[in-house]
Amino acid sequence: MQDFKDYMERINMFNQAMAIMGFDSEVFAPDGGLAQRAKRAGFFELEVYNMQTSDTMKGFLDKIATVLDTQDDIVKALYKKAKDSYYKKIKIPANIVEEYAKLTEESHDVWRKARKANDFAKFAPYLERIIELDMKKLEYRDPPSGGCKYDILLDDYEDDMTVDIYDKFFATLKETVVPLIKKVMASKKKIDTSFKNIFVDIDTQREISEFISKKIGYDLNRGYIGEAAHPMCMGADSTDVRITTRYDETDFLSSLYSVLHECGHAIYEQNAGDDIAGSYLGGGTSMGIHESQSHFYENVIGRSLEFWELITPELKEILPAGFAHVTPQMFFEAANESKPSLIRVEADELTYSLHVVIRYEIEKMLYSGQCKIADLPQIWNKKYEEYLGLTPPTYADGIMQDVHWSLGYFGYFPTYALGSAYAAQFLFHMKKEMDVDALIRKGDFLKITNWLREKIHKHGSKYTPALLMQKSFGEQLDASHFAQYLTNKYSRLYEL
Amino acid sequence: MQDFKDYMERINMFNQAMAIMGFDSEVFAPDGGLAQRAKRAGFFELEVYNMQTSDTMKGFLDKIATVLDTQDDIVKALYKKAKDSYYKKIKIPANIVEEYAKLTEESHDVWRKARKANDFAKFAPYLERIIELDMKKLEYRDPPSGGCKYDILLDDYEDDMTVDIYDKFFATLKETVVPLIKKVMASKKKIDTSFKNIFVDIDTQREISEFISKKIGYDLNRGYIGEAAHPMCMGADSTDVRITTRYDETDFLSSLYSVLHECGHAIYEQNAGDDIAGSYLGGGTSMGIHESQSHFYENVIGRSLEFWELITPELKEILPAGFAHVTPQMFFEAANESKPSLIRVEADELTYSLHVVIRYEIEKMLYSGQCKIADLPQIWNKKYEEYLGLTPPTYADGIMQDVHWSLGYFGYFPTYALGSAYAAQFLFHMKKEMDVDALIRKGDFLKITNWLREKIHKHGSKYTPALLMQKSFGEQLDASHFAQYLTNKYSRLYEL
Repeated sequence: MQDFKDYMERINMFNQAMAIMGFDSEVFAPDGGLAQRAKRAGFFELEVYNMQTSDTMKGFLDKIATVLDTQDDIVKALYKKAKDSYYKKIKIPANIVEEYAKLTEESHDVWRKARKANDFAKFAPYLERIIELDMKKLEYRDPPSGGCKYDILLDDYEDDMTVDIYDKFFATLKETVVPLIKKVMASKKKIDTSFKNIFVDIDTQREISEFISKKIGYDLNRGYIGEAAHPMCMGADSTDVRITTRYDETDFLSSLYSVLHECGHAIYEQNAGDDIAGSYLGGGTSMGIHESQSHFYENVIGRSLEFWELITPELKEILPAGFAHVTPQMFFEAANESKPSLIRVEADELTYSLHVVIRYEIEKMLYSGQCKIADLPQIWNKKYEEYLGLTPPTYADGIMQDVHWSLGYFGYFPTYALGSAYAAQFLFHMKKEMDVDALIRKGDFLKITNWLREKIHKHGSKYTPALLMQKSFGEQLDASHFAQYLTNKYSRLYEL
Repeated sequence: MQDFKDYMERINMFNQAMAIMGFDSEVFAPDGGLAQRAKRAGFFELEVYNMQTSDTMKGFLDKIATVLDTQDDIVKALYKKAKDSYYKKIKIPANIVEEYAKLTEESHDVWRKARKANDFAKFAPYLERIIELDMKKLEYRDPPSGGCKYDILLDDYEDDMTVDIYDKFFATLKETVVPLIKKVMASKKKIDTSFKNIFVDIDTQREISEFISKKIGYDLNRGYIGEAAHPMCMGADSTDVRITTRYDETDFLSSLYSVLHECGHAIYEQNAGDDIAGSYLGGGTSMGIHESQSHFYENVIGRSLEFWELITPELKEILPAGFAHVTPQMFFEAANESKPSLIRVEADELTYSLHVVIRYEIEKMLYSGQCKIADLPQIWNKKYEEYLGLTPPTYADGIMQDVHWSLGYFGYFPTYALGSAYAAQFLFHMKKEMDVDALIRKGDFLKITNWLREKIHKHGSKYTPALLMQKSFGEQLDASHFAQYLTNKYSRLYEL
């Protein structure tokens, strides 16, 4: 058993090195070094792949399977991860894996050009071939809990998730959000956003990043705020969890919220328990749970009125004089303005999940053969009209806006909706034990973070999301909390 | 043969990853992550050690030995490196290696405390045990060319070097430098250094670093100027060669020269030839040759009157107004002021090599059993009096100033004197082909760098220093060029 643990620790060391090099590549590394960096990254990825699919690994898996019941949670978690990565990778014939990699690389390139030319017909045959080949890959694999083939993809991106679970989840959201948006649209409430674009130079925004991240408890002695094209969080281990942001001089709130978002990810990983810190299990357990922490710090805390009451006085000492007239209420309102839009990545907290629903519903149809590729734009537009009241004028504003499908990432989108739902569910339980609003207003984030640490952070990836929910809350993902949260928040904000 | 090349490329990939992580650790990484970083570094060092000393490696070496003559320069170079690292490591029994590592760790700690307490007697027994144990290690190894045991250590730090070569080398330097220093000391020439300590804020110095490094041809598209406690150069491969500096607000020349120095190292590695770029052989060939390039850019170019004539007008546009009265001649003189001193790392170009001579002569005595540890301070002080006319008031200013011996680094010091000697020798040959002074005054560094690239840079570590000298110059290291260079330079400067 120690040999198995050592072997996993070896993989962990490689993963940590790749994380450090990845961050370096995004933030510091010179442009000229791109090709050699790609070569190095490829080398280390292959090293990890080889370890994950080696005969040695197969030997460990076979032996441990016979005694798994008697093992502790750590061995069980390592075993599950090792088994998943082994069988996901080993079962599909190498020539299909290679063909798929080649196809998606080509397809990604075609998508980029076709999007620019607003030409769906050019991209469509690639999309068709990707799905065909992906279906062929799925023939070699069985759904984890005996469901449909699309379940396999859903489970690949988020352990334990199935069409059954997502169907119920999204149904609840749609029931609430679609009518709520209509009410918000009809509301007479006017939100003043005139101050949002006042110029704030980058050095000042850097100061704000440091102020805001310290305020909510991101430990900079084990962290770093870098700058990169895409905001992200990189955790090598709990003692080195870094984030990036980007600055827009005429939209300081954009970086403020991206810092809060990434700090949520980072605080999760900084709080790994002693039994797993620095190990293979030290990171977060899933994309959905990880995103719940970033949403909690960005939205639940950061977009609350109480938070703006807390930080406005100190923030104004840093901000230029043009903000002198802005009250906490004004910041709060401007940060929460809701408007249906066509582009997912620009959507607000209320409308965001509908963008995800649409993609999920389409993927489900595609993987059960219920629609033709050629009909996709029409289906897409109809759903946007129905859920958000908008019709994309171009494919680039519609079906071709996201990179995911061009790369064959099916089953990925639904996880984007999990974060805010989990965050609202955690808030619901937290409120039973403490006055969260009062703690935010006082700036007492230690109590909030300690609660999250005990329930979620300290477990790292020791438990799958479903097991974590069971152990810490005695229940599973429940969209009704998020529905209620949105209803409360937007009714109050828009005086519905 | 391809398997062997692939195996060496594998080691190369690990070395590059370690270089990136090492730079990250010095420049960016959060303090809190120190312990885990040390663990990761240890893990990857052990990986490389295991590859270098594996049975697979032994198999390659045995096979290649039989066909080596028919191989190209690249295979020959890879073979030599692989063989050296294999036999250096494999021949010494593991328990001695371990004991030595433990002893030097302890000794380093004792040295630090003893130096603070100015207590040589406390450090002496450790020094004695290190040398005893090192001698025991040397019993397992033979000198590369049949000389004495100390030759093994010299060769470890610089291929091909022996006591015979160093003896002649240092004798030539002493003959010239000792009397030249006496003349300089007796000279009536007054050098104005009053402007050296004018305050220059760090942002301005950063601008100077960029200005100066671009000026001499450091390619920032394949580089990066970071800040760290110790100036250094890190080359992952020719497309990613970074440097660091540190800024002192009351001594801008200190950083300016450290940037020029590190740029010299960096330009060497950026210029690796296409046949070796990015490979195991892509770095510089030895400490001595590497240091020759940093000395060339820092001293030969950077401390010349012509260089100051070139940059003074542009530099003054960046520097504060307090420098308005400083002429190129004044900068040149202040940058070259020479004064015997007790501390090696603070020594100027003229006196520096004598600090090295003293250490070399003492090491030679120690490894031939010609002196007792207890007598070292007395021997040290006598030599400082003889060569530099100074006597250290404390051990910390004398025999205990350097970290090297406490870590068991014997044979290392002599390489410090090679850089300036090689640089002067290269300058001598360069001057036969072009008007170097005129090129510097015009800022035409491309011609200078192209010459160095053809003769030195492009070969990376394909040839040992001796072979490189033979191939590119038809001669070996010759201290007389440096002696002549110093005589010319300081006679002119001090009007001797």
